[in-house]
Amino acid sequence: LNRILERRSIRRFANRPVSQKTFKTILRAGQRAPTSCGTQSYSFIEVRSMTKRIAITELVGETQALQSAPIWLFVCCDAARPMKIFETLKIDCHLGEVTRLVHSLIDTSLAAENIVIASESLGLASVFTIYHWKVLGEIAGLLHLPANVLPLLLLCIGYPAEKPPLRPRWRTEIVFHVDRYRLPAKGTILRQYNKSNTSLVRMGYFSKGVETLAQHWQRKFSTKDMILRERKLRRELKRLGFLPETL
Amino acid sequence: LNRILERRSIRRFANRPVSQKTFKTILRAGQRAPTSCGTQSYSFIEVRSMTKRIAITELVGETQALQSAPIWLFVCCDAARPMKIFETLKIDCHLGEVTRLVHSLIDTSLAAENIVIASESLGLASVFTIYHWKVLGEIAGLLHLPANVLPLLLLCIGYPAEKPPLRPRWRTEIVFHVDRYRLPAKGTILRQYNKSNTSLVRMGYFSKGVETLAQHWQRKFSTKDMILRERKLRRELKRLGFLPETL
Repeated sequence: LNRILERRSIRRFANRPVSQKTFKTILRAGQRAPTSCGTQSYSFIEVRSMTKRIAITELVGETQALQSAPIWLFVCCDAARPMKIFETLKIDCHLGEVTRLVHSLIDTSLAAENIVIASESLGLASVFTIYHWKVLGEIAGLLHLPANVLPLLLLCIGYPAEKPPLRPRWRTEIVFHVDRYRLPAKGTILRQYNKSNTSLVRMGYFSKGVETLAQHWQRKFSTKDMILRERKLRRELKRLGFLPETL
Repeated sequence: LNRILERRSIRRFANRPVSQKTFKTILRAGQRAPTSCGTQSYSFIEVRSMTKRIAITELVGETQALQSAPIWLFVCCDAARPMKIFETLKIDCHLGEVTRLVHSLIDTSLAAENIVIASESLGLASVFTIYHWKVLGEIAGLLHLPANVLPLLLLCIGYPAEKPPLRPRWRTEIVFHVDRYRLPAKGTILRQYNKSNTSLVRMGYFSKGVETLAQHWQRKFSTKDMILRERKLRRELKRLGFLPETL
């Protein structure tokens, strides 16, 4: 339980390899996540080849996490395998595009979080990255993905070489409701925001000219960029088989 | 780690309440999951009201899990709160419909799995259900959800009153790849399928006239039903704000 409560994302890893035995245990833990009707709609792809690592770095940009992590693991939504299994068993089954997306996103994220927690309990650390979303098609090509496989998260795993403070979260009352949903009032939002922001500033969380959480979000989700990114995401998801062409 | 490796879905719960302290710890564990840029795009809604429980049971059908679980927790994708926070902070930020869906599905599922594992480590058990997907709009109404909140998973939590065997998973080699993806060959699929099927039959997993895993899938994902369910899912996701109207 403490492994969960004290888990932080680690972006700097020690120069120490992870044994195959440990890694296998982690993968097995990923597979123990609940899965819709036993379909196990995910695939884990480790990138070991230096050539591929370099190609990916060139596509997504160099980060400390990628540079230092001994394990790069693409956690992928995989509707291709269940669909091939249905075909092989000659059963008349189908998964629509949006069903594929929602079902496999859940299965895959649940498995990914098991991998994260299992890593923690073996003394390892990790961080999810999604920088590759801007080049999903290229990544799919590099990993030889067939249609209906989506490289969702790039998980970096290794022994930690930093111990950042625990990042703030909203007070539980903000995200937890009884019987009916309530959006927090303006005053609550501002109070909670200020608390989180002050704590992040004190931790030295921001860099590159960003000084507040609002600026951080402004940079990450600016309307102008997001319109382009939404368009690109739709195009890529269609291409990969997770949204209908008619969109 | 063993809590993860030995976790099974429990559908029959003991008649024993869960203390508020324990429940709070579980929710806090959910909040410790990694979250994209700190947006925490999820909400947890507990259904305590008997009137609402009865209304939901009427909509989704009675199951042993719903009947016996002391805690019913809707784990919801929540893009409404981040968007209200952006607005309150007067920052020019936006999340497109598909971005909302993908981002919040990941955040929400990661948090949900933390809740599941934290429950295990406190001696509790759980099961996810998605029976309510066929009545998403009605559930949204009952829980007073605004636009951009999607009741993704209904998680039943309580002390276990059964100990089913560990369900089979594909051999790790089937879901794990190095450097490039490979779909399993037909022979491998048939061998793995037979192994899983035999094991599930031996466990007495099937009921209601279903005798094999293939029949189970045939019933769950039949092409005819899935075409209708895909259409309905698209319509509901649009209505809730997680797919563009143009779809």
